[in-house]
Amino acid sequence: MTWQATVLTLYPEMFPGPLGLSLAGRALTDGVWSLKTVNIRDFATDKHRTVDDTPCGGGAGMVMRPDVVAASIRSIKDLPGPLIFLTPRGRVLNQAMVRDLAQGPGVKVLCGRFEGIDQRVIEAEGAQEVSIGDVVLSGGEPAALIVLDAVVRLLKGVMGSEQSGDEESFERGLLEYPHYTRPQVWEGLEVPEVLVSGHHEKIKAWRQRQAEDVTRRQRPDLWDRYVEAKKVDK
Amino acid sequence: MTWQATVLTLYPEMFPGPLGLSLAGRALTDGVWSLKTVNIRDFATDKHRTVDDTPCGGGAGMVMRPDVVAASIRSIKDLPGPLIFLTPRGRVLNQAMVRDLAQGPGVKVLCGRFEGIDQRVIEAEGAQEVSIGDVVLSGGEPAALIVLDAVVRLLKGVMGSEQSGDEESFERGLLEYPHYTRPQVWEGLEVPEVLVSGHHEKIKAWRQRQAEDVTRRQRPDLWDRYVEAKKVDK
Repeated sequence: MTWQATVLTLYPEMFPGPLGLSLAGRALTDGVWSLKTVNIRDFATDKHRTVDDTPCGGGAGMVMRPDVVAASIRSIKDLPGPLIFLTPRGRVLNQAMVRDLAQGPGVKVLCGRFEGIDQRVIEAEGAQEVSIGDVVLSGGEPAALIVLDAVVRLLKGVMGSEQSGDEESFERGLLEYPHYTRPQVWEGLEVPEVLVSGHHEKIKAWRQRQAEDVTRRQRPDLWDRYVEAKKVDK
Repeated sequence: MTWQATVLTLYPEMFPGPLGLSLAGRALTDGVWSLKTVNIRDFATDKHRTVDDTPCGGGAGMVMRPDVVAASIRSIKDLPGPLIFLTPRGRVLNQAMVRDLAQGPGVKVLCGRFEGIDQRVIEAEGAQEVSIGDVVLSGGEPAALIVLDAVVRLLKGVMGSEQSGDEESFERGLLEYPHYTRPQVWEGLEVPEVLVSGHHEKIKAWRQRQAEDVTRRQRPDLWDRYVEAKKVDK
C-alpha cells in the first residue's frame, strides 16, 4: 500500500525538491509513497488572495489567518494520517515518532510561514505541534523535508539492505560507532586493528564500546536515558 | 560582503532546492549569499567513479572512502568558513551555532550518504560533526538545507523586518508565545482579550507568561536551562 504524504504550504514548488532524487525519489517513482501538495493560498477568499494579517497585540511580522488555513486543512480531511504542524513550539521530532509515522498510512504536514499561524486553528483542528529542533527556519517547508525523508527511508522496500536501519543511530538509544573502509592504510592512518582481525565477537564489543563512548562524550542527555533504560531492563 | 556556502555532496542537483525560492531564494539572487556545490564523485579515481566500499569489520551498507572525500575537501580549501560534517554522531545544531555561522564569512558543509564517511578523514580534516537532531536521514543533504535556511534568514537584509528574529523562539531561551490575527472572532473562537486591549504592558506580560507556559509544558529541558540562566543573571 502506498504511504501518503500531503503537504499544506504556500510554496508547493519546494516539493518534492530533494525528495525527488536518490532513495526517496526512486521510492516515489516506484509508488512506495505518494506526495500531494496543497497550496494554502488557493483557499484565500479575497481578490488579492491574502493569507496573512498583522498580529493581534502588535509586533513584527505577519500571521496566517485561521479561516484560510482551516479551509485548506478541511480540503484534505479524507486523506490518511495525523495532521502535524511544524513549529519551534512543538514536541521535538525523534526516531520513535518517525517510526510511528512510517507504520501508519501517511501524514499531513502543515507548513507555516511569516511569524506563524493563528493558534485557534491549530487547536480547533487538533494539529500536533512538532519541532525539528532548536533552530528557527524561514518556514515549515525545510522541516517537512526532514520529516518525510526520515519516514520514507523506513518504508518497506526503500532501503537496499533491510538490515540497515536497525543498527543505526538512535535505534538502540546510542549514537553510532565510527565507520572505516578501504584503503586499510590511508596517508599513514590505519583502520583500527580489531576491524581487520576477522574476530566477530571482538568487533561487536569494540563497536559497542565506541558507540557508548561517543554518546557519553557528545550527548550526555542520550547517555543518561540509555543508562536508565538498561537499569530497567535488568 | 557575500556569505559563501559550499556543499560537498553526491547529489549537487538537490541544491539550491527549496533555498532557491522565497526568502532564501531572493537573497541568493540579490547576492546576499552564494552557493557552490562540489560533486564528491568528481574526485573518484577509477573508471567506475567509485566513492564507497564495504565497511571494515563487516556490517550492512557502504562507507565513503577517505581518499575520495579528502580530495573533495582539499579542492575547496581556499573557500571561507568552518567545515562541518552532518552526522547523527555530532553536536546538536542550535540557534547559537546558527548565529555564529551567520556572523562568519560562510560555511563548508560535507554531506555523507550510505552508512557514513570513513572516520579517518573526518578527524584528519578537522571537520566539526554536527547533527540536526535525533532522527536518521537518507543522507546529509536534507540536514544541509536546514543549516543553510536557518543561517541565511539571519544574514543582514534578508528578513523584511530587522526586528523580527529577536523575538523568535530560542533567542531568549524560551519557546514563542502563540500568535493571533484577524478575524477577531473566528467560528465562535475569540482572540485572547488582552491582545485587543491596546494595553502594551499587559500584552507584553501576557506573552511572556505564555512563552514560559509552553516552554515548561513542551520542553522541560529548555525550561530548566532558562531558570538556571535567570538565577545567574541576578
